[in-house]
Amino acid sequence: MRNVEKHINKIVKKIRFRIPDVAGALGRLTSELGANGAVLGDITKVHATLKYMVRDFIIFFDDKNHFLKTMSAIKKLKEYKILAIDDEVLRIHEGGKIAVKSLVEMNSLSDLRMIYTPGVAQVCSHILHNPSLARYYTSIGNTVCIATNGSAVLGLGDIGILPAMPVMEGKSVILNKMANVNCIPILMKSDDADMIVNTLSCIADTFGVIMIEDVKAPLCFEVEERLQKKVKMPVFHDDQHGTATVILAALIKTLKMTGRKKEKVKVVINGAGAAGMATCKMILKYGFKNIVICDTTGAIYKGRSKNMNPYKKELACLTNKKMEKGLLPDVIKEKDIFIGLSAPGIVTAEMVKSMNKRPIIFALANPIPEIHPKDALEAGAAIALDGRTINNALVFPGVMRGTLDARAPKITYRMKFAVAEKLAQIANRNECVPNFMNTAVHKEVARAVFLAADGK
Amino acid sequence: MRNVEKHINKIVKKIRFRIPDVAGALGRLTSELGANGAVLGDITKVHATLKYMVRDFIIFFDDKNHFLKTMSAIKKLKEYKILAIDDEVLRIHEGGKIAVKSLVEMNSLSDLRMIYTPGVAQVCSHILHNPSLARYYTSIGNTVCIATNGSAVLGLGDIGILPAMPVMEGKSVILNKMANVNCIPILMKSDDADMIVNTLSCIADTFGVIMIEDVKAPLCFEVEERLQKKVKMPVFHDDQHGTATVILAALIKTLKMTGRKKEKVKVVINGAGAAGMATCKMILKYGFKNIVICDTTGAIYKGRSKNMNPYKKELACLTNKKMEKGLLPDVIKEKDIFIGLSAPGIVTAEMVKSMNKRPIIFALANPIPEIHPKDALEAGAAIALDGRTINNALVFPGVMRGTLDARAPKITYRMKFAVAEKLAQIANRNECVPNFMNTAVHKEVARAVFLAADGK
Repeated sequence: MRNVEKHINKIVKKIRFRIPDVAGALGRLTSELGANGAVLGDITKVHATLKYMVRDFIIFFDDKNHFLKTMSAIKKLKEYKILAIDDEVLRIHEGGKIAVKSLVEMNSLSDLRMIYTPGVAQVCSHILHNPSLARYYTSIGNTVCIATNGSAVLGLGDIGILPAMPVMEGKSVILNKMANVNCIPILMKSDDADMIVNTLSCIADTFGVIMIEDVKAPLCFEVEERLQKKVKMPVFHDDQHGTATVILAALIKTLKMTGRKKEKVKVVINGAGAAGMATCKMILKYGFKNIVICDTTGAIYKGRSKNMNPYKKELACLTNKKMEKGLLPDVIKEKDIFIGLSAPGIVTAEMVKSMNKRPIIFALANPIPEIHPKDALEAGAAIALDGRTINNALVFPGVMRGTLDARAPKITYRMKFAVAEKLAQIANRNECVPNFMNTAVHKEVARAVFLAADGK
Repeated sequence: MRNVEKHINKIVKKIRFRIPDVAGALGRLTSELGANGAVLGDITKVHATLKYMVRDFIIFFDDKNHFLKTMSAIKKLKEYKILAIDDEVLRIHEGGKIAVKSLVEMNSLSDLRMIYTPGVAQVCSHILHNPSLARYYTSIGNTVCIATNGSAVLGLGDIGILPAMPVMEGKSVILNKMANVNCIPILMKSDDADMIVNTLSCIADTFGVIMIEDVKAPLCFEVEERLQKKVKMPVFHDDQHGTATVILAALIKTLKMTGRKKEKVKVVINGAGAAGMATCKMILKYGFKNIVICDTTGAIYKGRSKNMNPYKKELACLTNKKMEKGLLPDVIKEKDIFIGLSAPGIVTAEMVKSMNKRPIIFALANPIPEIHPKDALEAGAAIALDGRTINNALVFPGVMRGTLDARAPKITYRMKFAVAEKLAQIANRNECVPNFMNTAVHKEVARAVFLAADGK
């Protein structure tokens, strides 16, 4: 079995409570749950009796013990009763979350003869004589492949392809709901760049865009680079570019909110995996000047010998002009901005205090951040956000929609910058980025991508 | 550009007619269309005025000239008027015929946190610890891959992958509508067996079954054999086994209708491509004894040197015990059954007359048969059918449904025989096979497959 980190123990339950129908009764229950550290999702009214209300709560727990402890606490509340406990998450995922459906009717033999043989031959003929019509007469132009080998899944690590499938389907659901894009997961049983590149280039014409997903670094860099050279459609590694783009959006907005300039601020990025490296490259390209990127060995600098690879070497030449050395606790000192794409809990309050005044903290390790935003704020941060806010799900649905609509051959920096600026622009005054659940946001992103692709 | 045969010129139009609202007026129009050789699909009432009815006709024409000639004839009918002519087929295919849709709701942040991170980690964990749960918590167990390289598409030949996509989507629609199976087309840009086998085995775990589709012989044989050895899920080349199975069904029923025995009848199969070879093997296995298979070089016999391949050699040892030689016009003499999987119009009335009395003719070249069934019947055939009746679409939806439900590791002869026998059994008394549009047929097929897989 492959390595998996511990927070896979998190569980979600749907719990049905019978609550006295008196003023303050719901508040008492939610307070008790909150006091126990339970995180509440949706609360739904199920039905009412003369004396009671029945409500379903979606509740997120750290692990099984946390769940049991919380339930014991609730059971002590008089007049409250737990009526049912469901594994809501498991129920939602049963049978899979996506399906391939027909867009046409097939009610008669006449329908069949148009959809399939002999009528379909007419459509084949049109495409044979003008291949670009494949985008018009088939689903290809609205379809994205999401290809993974399961080697770097969310915060779960190298769990392999079958356990990765629920995540791929989740992303497919998001693309369907937020951008009306068909997203087909493709699980690849290989850790070999040749095999992955050959496989994807062989099947590439089935899709309008290929998204590489949850492939570990540095394999993901090689795959993306080589594949993009081989195929005509855009290749997009979301863990790199989606993440980098939403971080840039949040940077643009927070610099504005705190009255700083990108050319002046000192940035430390912790984590030299896919997301860290891509973020570093993107913000350099956007005009940030003072950046140091760290990995587990410490600051990356030109000439460092330990734990390097060609991608780190390239970044060493572009960043850290002052040749800073040492581990994160040293390097973070007197920086204005911390961007963490690394590991849970590695930033302390002291480290935040050692930064320049009122620093900006993006603690994006998933799902447990480098430092809890609340703790960072208490230690003096002007703004502190984690992955719940700065999430690539704000980026990829609109990027896919806009790219497909524009029939863009590549996803360029110009397009990604347009997305970051649009997100920063449409966020409410007090928000660093807009609300993911607002479908209008994804439409705006798609439009920005479309226009930036068009003007290229 | 690759080779394409001529009948790609067939066209389908949706024509809106204004018809006098008097008795016999519709009959006069349909008669005139019929007299011109137009094949009618659905006729829909659109609206009625005081003096006229407006109806839409779906009409199939041989080619553009046939269409123009028919329209001229109709324009001569007084009081009738053509109001509109649409390329109905093209309209149906616009934007593609399939889409990937979410099966779950995503109306709140709480939903998102269960579908995607962090909630999804729980489901990943379950699958990590028990990989067989992937079938339960993902779409894999309900999903079929339909993989093609576009080298033998319907009757169109080697048209390549993009022009093949509308056909693949058509099959996906049929699987969705008739068997509630997700079917994902995969276009493979390769004519190389190694590349195709490596690509499909790399992505195989994404699917519950892999269907090979419209790959030319003998490449299809090598791909199917090698792939089935490499992967755990069933590999099914529909052009071989779907076709062979529906032919066996029709044979079982027509032998019964004409009072013949499978051990006694003399069969000639014309065509040694995928379908011809698979049919030959399957009916041999089922107990037919006297079979000669022909290709363009004539009867295949043991020791023939010209135009052979390892697959033909294998069949030469199993068939043609009397070492018949010569071309089809010689070989067809004194046979009871002709099965054509070859080329349009190559069987004459004289050839049918040279067969044993009241022969059975299956002229399955698609979409133009070896001999039109009407001509074969006039020449003395007891039963004559073409590909409109004997169609593998009767087989593959139920086979996929039953195989997925049974989680069968392979699709065995036992399962295929069960399908053929079930189809023969449930066909109406005067039908050789049941009606494809009857969804109950596909359920019966699925059940037969499920039971035959289970009992293995």
